[in-house]
Amino acid sequence: MIGCNTQLWEVKSSLRGVMAELQALSNTEKTVISLGTGDPTAYPQFLGGRPPFIDSLSSAFASSLTDSYAPSFGLPPARRAVAEHLSKVLKLCAGSEVVPFHVSDTDVFLTSGAAQAIHLVLTILSSAGGNILLPRPGFPLYDSACDLAGVRRRYYDLLPSRRWEADPTQIRSLADDRTLAIVVINPNNPSGANFSAHHLFQIAEIARDLNIPIIADEVYGGMVFGGASFVPMASFAHLAPVITIGSLSKRWMVPGWRLGWLVICDPQGNLQRVREATEILMNVYSGPASVIQAAVPTVLSDANEKFHENVVMLLELSADTLFRGLEKIEVLRCYYRPQGSMFMMVEVDTTRLLGIESDMDFAKELMKEESILVVPGSILGLKNWVRLFFGLPAGLLNDACDRMRSFCKRRMINAWQV
Amino acid sequence: MIGCNTQLWEVKSSLRGVMAELQALSNTEKTVISLGTGDPTAYPQFLGGRPPFIDSLSSAFASSLTDSYAPSFGLPPARRAVAEHLSKVLKLCAGSEVVPFHVSDTDVFLTSGAAQAIHLVLTILSSAGGNILLPRPGFPLYDSACDLAGVRRRYYDLLPSRRWEADPTQIRSLADDRTLAIVVINPNNPSGANFSAHHLFQIAEIARDLNIPIIADEVYGGMVFGGASFVPMASFAHLAPVITIGSLSKRWMVPGWRLGWLVICDPQGNLQRVREATEILMNVYSGPASVIQAAVPTVLSDANEKFHENVVMLLELSADTLFRGLEKIEVLRCYYRPQGSMFMMVEVDTTRLLGIESDMDFAKELMKEESILVVPGSILGLKNWVRLFFGLPAGLLNDACDRMRSFCKRRMINAWQV
Repeated sequence: MIGCNTQLWEVKSSLRGVMAELQALSNTEKTVISLGTGDPTAYPQFLGGRPPFIDSLSSAFASSLTDSYAPSFGLPPARRAVAEHLSKVLKLCAGSEVVPFHVSDTDVFLTSGAAQAIHLVLTILSSAGGNILLPRPGFPLYDSACDLAGVRRRYYDLLPSRRWEADPTQIRSLADDRTLAIVVINPNNPSGANFSAHHLFQIAEIARDLNIPIIADEVYGGMVFGGASFVPMASFAHLAPVITIGSLSKRWMVPGWRLGWLVICDPQGNLQRVREATEILMNVYSGPASVIQAAVPTVLSDANEKFHENVVMLLELSADTLFRGLEKIEVLRCYYRPQGSMFMMVEVDTTRLLGIESDMDFAKELMKEESILVVPGSILGLKNWVRLFFGLPAGLLNDACDRMRSFCKRRMINAWQV
Repeated sequence: MIGCNTQLWEVKSSLRGVMAELQALSNTEKTVISLGTGDPTAYPQFLGGRPPFIDSLSSAFASSLTDSYAPSFGLPPARRAVAEHLSKVLKLCAGSEVVPFHVSDTDVFLTSGAAQAIHLVLTILSSAGGNILLPRPGFPLYDSACDLAGVRRRYYDLLPSRRWEADPTQIRSLADDRTLAIVVINPNNPSGANFSAHHLFQIAEIARDLNIPIIADEVYGGMVFGGASFVPMASFAHLAPVITIGSLSKRWMVPGWRLGWLVICDPQGNLQRVREATEILMNVYSGPASVIQAAVPTVLSDANEKFHENVVMLLELSADTLFRGLEKIEVLRCYYRPQGSMFMMVEVDTTRLLGIESDMDFAKELMKEESILVVPGSILGLKNWVRLFFGLPAGLLNDACDRMRSFCKRRMINAWQV
């Protein structure tokens, strides 16, 4: 048999692979309710229809121009639309002063989903022996992308006791002169946290002191609720340069369109080499489909504000429904009501569940018996927790809670005390 | 300034980068005629309209399913359609016997254009100190992909004196026990050759003896003319396993759709590890847009045969027009009339052109004076040749020939002898 790159077997196993394995275990007598992958289109009734901008795709493909190759860095009107979209909410928070800050179209590179942007940025920053600071619990694609780019992973902890913010002292203590960047995912997948401006400022100070950029994964940017407001990491770009990653997948609810972006937010001009490297790579990689790029200006226009407001309202309702449902399950604990994204982390007291030694056991048995799909926390770096997706209609979330409750009740040691 | 992966500056410079530089030199008084990048949609009048299957995109996006993530390896109906499309013309050529050979949907992985398939396959096969045999002149993306994957490049020559086929003895002499694969591009970009079954058999024998796979780039598969017939490399997959790369970009003339494929043609089951590695990578990378994938079965259906026949007829006419036009230019030489793809290689006698020391000079000066864009052969590995794209209306090709003739005449040493 012909061999191949053996290092690929060392690449940290993917979320998608584990999800597929779990999916195969479902109880055939019960409809699967997926609290697994974050696909907001999985339950179309959640939104009561497709987003209002869907027809923009139709107008885009009506032009034969969209059959052709797009420029390597993206179609200019699409790059401009992303730059304007980000600039709208962007202000540099310099002490008491607030200075407007604009990213320009040339700062924007269109990618095949945020996934490609993540691979790009890690390839660009990688250097022999270099390491990167990742949040734990995290998003497994960063682990795979680090492994593929040959970058070492170091984890800083997101702390449930601090509303899932990190301890700046720990972040500092992990860094050394080979640290390439700090990854910040905000609003946070998987915890549902929305970081305060103060916390982002603390991280920016660390990056400034280390003279490294921040990779700001803002795929859930703007998806906050419960009175919270979203502060882009680039608000502190005057302290440390920020490489912002975003996509249409979540806020615009079209993950199948595979349109993401990598934006260099660098008011001090410290990322010139990174910019050149991005250009080199985008010239040899393949970006998103032209027809999707052509739709971007319409998709990002203000005309869709009502749609977004409605989505956020529905997400808040769903988050609350799930949170309240979980409160009734003794062995599960969700420390905080989510303030953003589409996920929450739930602690599982495996010591009180018969035949459940780990979060993976919990996920497998729950799927086998109740056809509820959850993400085992151990693949996100947090043992004996699970990640739950809440972008579903409240009714389905109530069903899911009922089934999880029955499951836990059946498995509970001292069940008669419940 | 913050640093980054310095190895990226070692990545062989891209075709797109050079094209952009040349484009900027154009003579503003003359409309640019691009014989550069192989974008068949650049001159829509060439086809007299868009392909007949364009509406399939409209039907595809009418379904909300296409807003969602596609499975990592591709939508099952699209994978099946590619498998059926390839199997239709596939027969194993085993001596006097011809055995039908079918690839199955699970052999097919959908990629973001052939470009992603090229990067994938090189990442999959790479190993420390490994090398790969590439054709020269070649397609620069292989060079960049090798550099990014850390694979050494060794070149075998395509010989104009042999109708651009290679010398099997040379291929063998280049290989050693660290050779990972042989890349075969057929129909050939950039020479316009269509390799004979006998030549493909010779290469398969070499791969068999070396126990390595063949990477068969068949992006121009089926695009042959002048009485030639296209033989897929996988016709010899019983000798050595073949990894076939293809895409919708050229034959279906929608490069902007970014839909390609990587197909494991492995009747003997020698590529099991390669298959697993492909699955690992596809689980962490991002594939083509769901809406495009959904259109694939319609795009690949037999209903479009007339369209393809017409394209091939137009290409033959264009190739002939360009070939005949070039015959009238003394310092340019095209050894053979192309039999496939959309390109031909033309030798430039720089010794007879004033102020032209190299193919790069030729390309630059031609663009400055005549606004004709050509690809300098040196970036394809062949000095003092240029690559010309002929997927243009014959009228434009005649104009291009006239302008190249004037240019050469003005520059020619001993011009009075012409």
